[in-house]
Amino acid sequence: MLLCDIGNTSLHFYDLQNDYKESVEQFDPASIEEEVYYICVHPKLKKRLYELPNWHNLEEKVDRSRYYDTMGIDRIMACEAIKNGVIVDAGSAITVDVMQNGIFQGGFIYPGARAFEQAFASISDVLAYELPNKIDLSHLPKNTPEALAYGFLSGLVKEINSYDLDIVLTGGDATLLQRHIPKSKVDRLLLFKGMLSVLGKI
Amino acid sequence: MLLCDIGNTSLHFYDLQNDYKESVEQFDPASIEEEVYYICVHPKLKKRLYELPNWHNLEEKVDRSRYYDTMGIDRIMACEAIKNGVIVDAGSAITVDVMQNGIFQGGFIYPGARAFEQAFASISDVLAYELPNKIDLSHLPKNTPEALAYGFLSGLVKEINSYDLDIVLTGGDATLLQRHIPKSKVDRLLLFKGMLSVLGKI
Repeated sequence: MLLCDIGNTSLHFYDLQNDYKESVEQFDPASIEEEVYYICVHPKLKKRLYELPNWHNLEEKVDRSRYYDTMGIDRIMACEAIKNGVIVDAGSAITVDVMQNGIFQGGFIYPGARAFEQAFASISDVLAYELPNKIDLSHLPKNTPEALAYGFLSGLVKEINSYDLDIVLTGGDATLLQRHIPKSKVDRLLLFKGMLSVLGKI
Repeated sequence: MLLCDIGNTSLHFYDLQNDYKESVEQFDPASIEEEVYYICVHPKLKKRLYELPNWHNLEEKVDRSRYYDTMGIDRIMACEAIKNGVIVDAGSAITVDVMQNGIFQGGFIYPGARAFEQAFASISDVLAYELPNKIDLSHLPKNTPEALAYGFLSGLVKEINSYDLDIVLTGGDATLLQRHIPKSKVDRLLLFKGMLSVLGKI
């Protein structure tokens, strides 16, 4: 059995021992003969997968009424993995969701680092910087690149810390965020845990 | 005497009684015969104004060593108006600067509402929304437009409130922010006050 989390650019596979990624552009899902349980936010690929009998869409097994109509299936799967906590999925967008006693409390969406850089560059050429990876949030910056990185991170970190719950980070920028939220833990397989939970295997 | 704050799209004039705006595209600065004291972040117009003897660039009268090299002159002028406080200029970018005992403590830059909308739309079509004007930050959202507006505002508001200082808001989106920071005050003439302070008139 394979689990697969399909985003806009890559397929993230997990065989319950190892995980690996394939590019949406180059990967042919018909090349897999095993049973695959997946979630997918890529509209074209989603259509294609319905034609393949060994690919099973886990979205159909989720009780969506516990969340809200337009909530992304990736956010829902991450929530399914956690009974109590703040779940931060830091990718092209950063989603922050809160679960209490297994009940979804709501959540919000924030642009990821690349989208933030583009937003700054679209305002003015003088704000067109790559955000520095290292930034000290303990004092206010006195130069432009740090003023942008502080803007990106400081309020977000305060918001995430404000719920007095355990914090789980996942997604490509999870480790970047963890530098500023030391009491959090990173779990890059979180969505797969949610998928296993939905499958009744945990 | 006229004061003028020139941004990327408009000239904001103040004659010490009334203020009004002109479009950068359509306005001819040579049409004014009065003495004008101005700041300007528009590179082309800045060059043009150096040729007009009655237009005086106040940037030359500021002690820039009290700030940092690449800091925008508009931010500096707002800081010059305040001895103690958090200064929020909410325009195409939102700048947040802190002054204590007349000394610049640092500041940060955040995308304005339009840039945030563009950032979300650039991530995915499903995030392409106009941010709702009214959003309740007292609980986590359970729908997409509010999840985006909450992401835009909630951390920013927590950050601005974290300094335990008076808060002054200026710029086009000042009133939008004030809804969520009731203890703040809006001063749309703040930059002109800084300019007058630099001119030694206050």
